Amino acid sequence: MEFVDAPPSTVAIIGVGLIGGSLALALRRAWPSVCIVGKDVDAENLASAIREKVIDRNAEDRDIANADIIVLAAPVGQTAAMLADIAPNLSANTVVTDVGSTKQDVLLAAQQVLGSAVSRFVPGHPIAGREMSGVAAADATLFIGKNAVLTPHELQDAAALARVTRMWKATGANVLEMAPSAHDAVFAAVSHLPHMLAFALVDSFARRADAKQLFSFAASGFRDFTRIASSSPEMWRDIALNNREAIVTELDRFLAEVASLRDVIAEGDAAALTERMTSAHNAREQWLVGDLSRFRDEAA
Amino acid sequence: MEFVDAPPSTVAIIGVGLIGGSLALALRRAWPSVCIVGKDVDAENLASAIREKVIDRNAEDRDIANADIIVLAAPVGQTAAMLADIAPNLSANTVVTDVGSTKQDVLLAAQQVLGSAVSRFVPGHPIAGREMSGVAAADATLFIGKNAVLTPHELQDAAALARVTRMWKATGANVLEMAPSAHDAVFAAVSHLPHMLAFALVDSFARRADAKQLFSFAASGFRDFTRIASSSPEMWRDIALNNREAIVTELDRFLAEVASLRDVIAEGDAAALTERMTSAHNAREQWLVGDLSRFRDEAA
Repeated sequence: MEFVDAPPSTVAIIGVGLIGGSLALALRRAWPSVCIVGKDVDAENLASAIREKVIDRNAEDRDIANADIIVLAAPVGQTAAMLADIAPNLSANTVVTDVGSTKQDVLLAAQQVLGSAVSRFVPGHPIAGREMSGVAAADATLFIGKNAVLTPHELQDAAALARVTRMWKATGANVLEMAPSAHDAVFAAVSHLPHMLAFALVDSFARRADAKQLFSFAASGFRDFTRIASSSPEMWRDIALNNREAIVTELDRFLAEVASLRDVIAEGDAAALTERMTSAHNAREQWLVGDLSRFRDEAA
Repeated sequence: MEFVDAPPSTVAIIGVGLIGGSLALALRRAWPSVCIVGKDVDAENLASAIREKVIDRNAEDRDIANADIIVLAAPVGQTAAMLADIAPNLSANTVVTDVGSTKQDVLLAAQQVLGSAVSRFVPGHPIAGREMSGVAAADATLFIGKNAVLTPHELQDAAALARVTRMWKATGANVLEMAPSAHDAVFAAVSHLPHMLAFALVDSFARRADAKQLFSFAASGFRDFTRIASSSPEMWRDIALNNREAIVTELDRFLAEVASLRDVIAEGDAAALTERMTSAHNAREQWLVGDLSRFRDEAA
């Protein structure tokens, strides 16, 4: 396909939740004349998206056929089903992208369902999650200043990649490219692991005999540590299953780290505790001010 | 000692950091005529506290002797040293309390250093931490609506307890009483454990060969999950050492929980993942709205 230097006239969003709805609002701001159509398995959520003018209307087959860009924005476990749903109406001028937190599985599904048309599929992941779900949480400014990672692949059509890059830039995001496997490894560590730990902590407290007492004394440290455990269980179940290998690797690493810290505490090793806590404290302070110069940069 | 129904005229604060400084500011608001004296091992921090009128002056021996309340507000590892420092000047009209996150060890130190005067020592713990340290972070409103836990003991003088209760109420806090051992067990779970996990995660990332890449993609989920890893390393080293047994118990429990979640993910058990994540999500939402009615209440 050829690259045309004009905004898309129709964007179809499959799954008009926090991310899909925020993308719709951001694109409306950037491109006032764009037509945004949507689908959602939740009829009430879809009706709300239309009523609140987040999208223009329900996406019919002809809208899918006419779309310049189709964005898959439902939980990643539905990727194959969403692709199968749009495939019969997919035109040669349409680019498909997604917003999922895992990329190797999404690309595999696209290869299987789309065949050679996978050249026009651009795997993507805007790094802009929140713990809220649904179109009611949509925010036109969600992506401003955030990273949008694209993971182009061997069969990638350059014009398709350019079109999706342009879309994310229009939302105010910084567009970065990574290999799908590198993406999945990095986000298993910095995002998926903390989510699993937060879910595990809150779930384990909720099942304890002294749950009421624990929750009655939980304060702001617990609140922030577990904020991500208020995220969508369906979305995170899919991520856990679809990036299983990398997440298990990170969980095993973290289990070894915590077991080691546990031993340091049990032994009363004050010097080792000071060293580890100071390392963590200083690393986080450096990260907060955006200074990554002291960190090792020998990524595999 | 007898209970006198008047505000204290002199309060001495040993360690004028986030908590000590916030307490000073809150007491000034409640009791404009109170004289607040302070000590701090950090001369610069103490000078700043005086310059900013958080406290009136450096605490001399006669101030300690005249104080109605002495508040120990340095890291808990310094409790015995702080008590030994004030003991020679302690009058029979003075009540001593502390703000430490561990209570059994603090009470033990008070028994050892103060002897029978431990009757006028009231172990306390305002549940109002932040990740910032030092008097510059002090805030007169820090304790409003927060819990202040007191852990009175067998030898506790009732008037001493009443005086400290009154002080915390004056800051806007809700005052609760617990046994020292119950306090240490509950806070090992809801506070100390998350702190240890956050320190462990950030420290482990900082030591990795791909640290730079990890930190460059870490986003808001990571930021909130690890906020408490920006807390004072000295303070948290002391807490880890001084509540060692309960923290190791909680770390062992959590290691087992995470190992179990790891197996569920490795097996691809979607139903179990949905159940655990939904349990966590729902428990946190209930907690956020203050509804603890569905939690079990069979504390040991």
